[in-house]
Amino acid sequence: MPLATASQRHPLWELLEQLDSRQAGAELHRFIAELYPLCRSITGEGLRETLRQVDSFAGLEIVEVPSGTQVFDWTVPNEWNIRDAYIADLDGNRLVDFQDNNLHVVGYSSPIHQCVSREELLEHLYSDSRHPEWIPYRNSYYRETWGFCVSHNQLAEFNDEEYEVCIDSSLMPGSLSYGEAYLPGETQREVLISTHACHPSLCNDNLSGIAVAAMLLKQLRDIPRRYSYRFLFVPCTIGPIAWLHGHQELTSRIDHGLVLACLGDSGGMTYVRSRRDTADIDRVIQHVLADSGEGYEVRQFAPYGYDQRQYCSPGFNLPLGCLMRTPNGEYPEYHTSADNLGLVRPEALADSFTKILTGLAALEDNKRYIALVQHGEPQLGRHGLYDKAQEFGLFWLLNYADGEHSLLDIAEKSGLSFAKLSKGISLLKGVGLLTDGPIEKLAT
Amino acid sequence: MPLATASQRHPLWELLEQLDSRQAGAELHRFIAELYPLCRSITGEGLRETLRQVDSFAGLEIVEVPSGTQVFDWTVPNEWNIRDAYIADLDGNRLVDFQDNNLHVVGYSSPIHQCVSREELLEHLYSDSRHPEWIPYRNSYYRETWGFCVSHNQLAEFNDEEYEVCIDSSLMPGSLSYGEAYLPGETQREVLISTHACHPSLCNDNLSGIAVAAMLLKQLRDIPRRYSYRFLFVPCTIGPIAWLHGHQELTSRIDHGLVLACLGDSGGMTYVRSRRDTADIDRVIQHVLADSGEGYEVRQFAPYGYDQRQYCSPGFNLPLGCLMRTPNGEYPEYHTSADNLGLVRPEALADSFTKILTGLAALEDNKRYIALVQHGEPQLGRHGLYDKAQEFGLFWLLNYADGEHSLLDIAEKSGLSFAKLSKGISLLKGVGLLTDGPIEKLAT
Amino acid sequence: MPLATASQRHPLWELLEQLDSRQAGAELHRFIAELYPLCRSITGEGLRETLRQVDSFAGLEIVEVPSGTQVFDWTVPNEWNIRDAYIADLDGNRLVDFQDNNLHVVGYSSPIHQCVSREELLEHLYSDSRHPEWIPYRNSYYRETWGFCVSHNQLAEFNDEEYEVCIDSSLMPGSLSYGEAYLPGETQREVLISTHACHPSLCNDNLSGIAVAAMLLKQLRDIPRRYSYRFLFVPCTIGPIAWLHGHQELTSRIDHGLVLACLGDSGGMTYVRSRRDTADIDRVIQHVLADSGEGYEVRQFAPYGYDQRQYCSPGFNLPLGCLMRTPNGEYPEYHTSADNLGLVRPEALADSFTKILTGLAALEDNKRYIALVQHGEPQLGRHGLYDKAQEFGLFWLLNYADGEHSLLDIAEKSGLSFAKLSKGISLLKGVGLLTDGPIEKLAT
Repeated sequence: MPLATASQRHPLWELLEQLDSRQAGAELHRFIAELYPLCRSITGEGLRETLRQVDSFAGLEIVEVPSGTQVFDWTVPNEWNIRDAYIADLDGNRLVDFQDNNLHVVGYSSPIHQCVSREELLEHLYSDSRHPEWIPYRNSYYRETWGFCVSHNQLAEFNDEEYEVCIDSSLMPGSLSYGEAYLPGETQREVLISTHACHPSLCNDNLSGIAVAAMLLKQLRDIPRRYSYRFLFVPCTIGPIAWLHGHQELTSRIDHGLVLACLGDSGGMTYVRSRRDTADIDRVIQHVLADSGEGYEVRQFAPYGYDQRQYCSPGFNLPLGCLMRTPNGEYPEYHTSADNLGLVRPEALADSFTKILTGLAALEDNKRYIALVQHGEPQLGRHGLYDKAQEFGLFWLLNYADGEHSLLDIAEKSGLSFAKLSKGISLLKGVGLLTDGPIEKLAT
Repeated sequence: MPLATASQRHPLWELLEQLDSRQAGAELHRFIAELYPLCRSITGEGLRETLRQVDSFAGLEIVEVPSGTQVFDWTVPNEWNIRDAYIADLDGNRLVDFQDNNLHVVGYSSPIHQCVSREELLEHLYSDSRHPEWIPYRNSYYRETWGFCVSHNQLAEFNDEEYEVCIDSSLMPGSLSYGEAYLPGETQREVLISTHACHPSLCNDNLSGIAVAAMLLKQLRDIPRRYSYRFLFVPCTIGPIAWLHGHQELTSRIDHGLVLACLGDSGGMTYVRSRRDTADIDRVIQHVLADSGEGYEVRQFAPYGYDQRQYCSPGFNLPLGCLMRTPNGEYPEYHTSADNLGLVRPEALADSFTKILTGLAALEDNKRYIALVQHGEPQLGRHGLYDKAQEFGLFWLLNYADGEHSLLDIAEKSGLSFAKLSKGISLLKGVGLLTDGPIEKLAT
Repeated sequence: MPLATASQRHPLWELLEQLDSRQAGAELHRFIAELYPLCRSITGEGLRETLRQVDSFAGLEIVEVPSGTQVFDWTVPNEWNIRDAYIADLDGNRLVDFQDNNLHVVGYSSPIHQCVSREELLEHLYSDSRHPEWIPYRNSYYRETWGFCVSHNQLAEFNDEEYEVCIDSSLMPGSLSYGEAYLPGETQREVLISTHACHPSLCNDNLSGIAVAAMLLKQLRDIPRRYSYRFLFVPCTIGPIAWLHGHQELTSRIDHGLVLACLGDSGGMTYVRSRRDTADIDRVIQHVLADSGEGYEVRQFAPYGYDQRQYCSPGFNLPLGCLMRTPNGEYPEYHTSADNLGLVRPEALADSFTKILTGLAALEDNKRYIALVQHGEPQLGRHGLYDKAQEFGLFWLLNYADGEHSLLDIAEKSGLSFAKLSKGISLLKGVGLLTDGPIEKLAT
């Protein structure tokens, strides 16, 4: 779908102005609720079903990478599937039941069905004494073992001599699944949105990221785009490594990117800059957060956290940051059963979504404009724009539309929002005082 | 007039040392008082008479640009002249009289002489409720209308049914006037000093700028100069645009410049950096202000304020900042009848003048010097300078006189005043330890 | 001695880990105590004997530069030697005696033996009223005169009419002595350590510098070295100037350097950056100080202080900073008899020594490493290093071992200590995940 006439604003701004936050928040929360019960892991049916539901919601291709495939320093592991699991007393009463909460089973647990002594059982039980009512989340991806997670309170109740332990799982050659969607734009230069889809019944980490990414995909699909957009719904670490391995030459097309995670809690936004530190995406997101008037935090890149570690490994060094609300490990409910549907708030989800969409709209508009009057100010009164000059930054735009400064430069210098400057661009184009410069980085 | 022998200080330093501040302040204030009654506007006899008086004071060429001349995006407007104006009651008593204060008439008011109803009159009256005793200043340059400005208190007194309204003005083809003075120096590289001369009876904005610029012109005229100096006394916006339009190729000679305005109030100094942000003039003025030990403020360039907007439009982007005390719009008397002879203080005018002259002296001296001993320190005791080393920054000068660092660099590194370093340069030259490097930017 | 196998840490780290601080501090203090009684000056036997003792302690070549040698803007002065000096009353009682404290005689005093009036004597006495019990330190290197320094309290006791004054000194052609030691490394690129050795019985300024430098020399002598090391024990100003004059072409080999002084008082560390401001040595020392968790101060280069003034003169501009605890002139005992064996603390000396050695170890390790997995993270679990990743910064090292970032860059980004990163490098090399890049600046 081609972009509209030159003086019209990018349709994303209209979409943003018309967005019903309550409705968007409710839709995001509803989608999270649908995905919540599935037992995701880095491979297996729970992950695959999640991708199918994202496909229904927003359109997606599901890609399978066979177990055993060598991807850089890693090997795609066997596929893990689980049907049931429990700890029962010898009377057959289920004391711990996977059907109640899939966090009860350590992810990637090997199958087992036997009676074990209290002592042996305790060696395979994990709990968190700091939060005695919550079930912690544990997995054991690359070391074969089995285990259960229980609340610390429950731990004290295991007083019998023996227990029946059953994990009806399988760990066999299969494949690793990930979801990919590609929306072509006017240029092949890409924006990459990546989110991890491997955590079981945990809402903020990371059904929030999945839902927000899915909604972005859905909205961008029907909008004329300058950039092409690629969405990845991947299992942590091995997912992006497998994708990167299969698309090495394609990575040179990526101009901007975001890893999305933990976008539903009620904390302020946190942005971790790309390894490049001053990439356009870093500057755009910082400006959007600063402009919000709300508290936020920006951190420098560190080789910790989510999948930016892979996209920003030195061989790729992609211009891609990580956007979260409260970061992983910094809220008490992190990786416990308390990261549930109550922790993620519709209004926080909608707010995260809106900020990201604003950033993408800014990227779409981020060109080097050229004012048609370069010598002295134009006489705005004569052009009917004098009254609108202040609000929409017309003097800022005219002074810096010199073919050298980008919209991003002008936003930073003026402190004005991308939305207002975008309106200003449209007004100035409308009277023939501004034109697009050569589109930045359109090197393809 | 050629510069004196190599080891002598620039004569501006002597002039500064001998300056009688009280006398300078008094002379500046007296000149303002002489210009105060004239009804200036962006064209017309009030402006022209002001330029004639600056000519008498300091020497000036008055240039006329015919009405209708196209200058970039603007057209030189018709010339406005006014002889008389009043509002009278039907008994002929003048209630509002242009002869009392020229602020009473909206600038560029069309001629009118008729009886109008109270209602119609009120539509053409302007007052300022925040300052009920002051007459506000208004004009309507590029939209034909008529109007009067009155104190808010007086507004309540218009209770008759009808009034006689008279504005004996003319708005006809003529010309726009500006004043220009050019003082050639050793090089054609230029320093541009520009000040606006279009405001009627308002002292700080901008008789203060006119007076200080005129005094600078007068003093520099008889001093040997490295740089050439150009002074412009121009009506706001259209004035610099007209000048720039007529002298496009000449602008490449301008190495440094200042727009002067609001230099007489009792507030601290404010400097708005050039669009280049780190031009020599920006660094020089900041150093002079920092060295003063008084409070001051430095702001980044913004496309608002005075005529730097035109000089710093992208097609020119001249290295020119704006020096003020309290900026336009930030003191309560701004653009009202309270911006009168009492608001501008002789000591503030003299202080502004001295600081600018110090900055110009620094620019004259701002070269890359070369120490004749580059390896190890010279033995200052042997050269009879050991006792003066500390006070006049001799070690700083010797260490950084490497042909790479300018006087400005050394001033910034050492924190020493230009005056002291200038004395140090003279001392070191006197014993043959320092020489001028190739003069910076002497590209002509 | 060649460096050990690739995956071993530099032996300096082992030396640092095994260092017994108490023992090192005691040894440093003992050496200071041995040197304390000698009457050093910028030439003469006291200086020469000091160099001989440093030679015994750590190995040194003593170089003699004949009086009258022209070195840049300076001339090597006559050699000064002193055997005895006193002020006696006419009964022959020594009131002031050089044998008690060599600070009593103004350095470089001409010989004299005669009776002088009280009046004349007082003109040649120096005291410090702010510290009435201490003897100040004075010299008169480049102006022939004589004088005594006494406590301010003693000054009041000179009430006789006449006194016998004797200074049994000689000021005659001889030579200026300095000590030099060169430890060749794998590369001819050099680290220069310079300390001044011309002050008489003053402990912090600068027996502390002499002792720490001597101990560094002693320790580095038996350690495999990447860099070559040069140590200079020189009289202030004229010493480095004479050395630089004789080794101009050699200075281009110097990659890093430190001037050491005032390293024994109980204050925090102070580092004065090189004139280059961001040389590797500047960054290394700042990181070591920041990592210590103790208070410290870093200052920009100024052409004041110790011999960095000469090494950083524009013709040389060597990358060499000055490390001190409390700087010259900023502790009350400075240049008085109170700068004695009590002022310098064994623990402060050992701490200064350790920090400098840590900095040198960091320089030895400061290369651009290359991770053998550049695309995505390596699977550290598979390589048996997952548990050590956090402590030793393995992810930081792997992400930035891209051939562009040096160890110094990684230390600054991660905030981790050089010691930990060095251990991390060794671990990663051990499993083949990291290799040395081309050694930085190995241009010889």
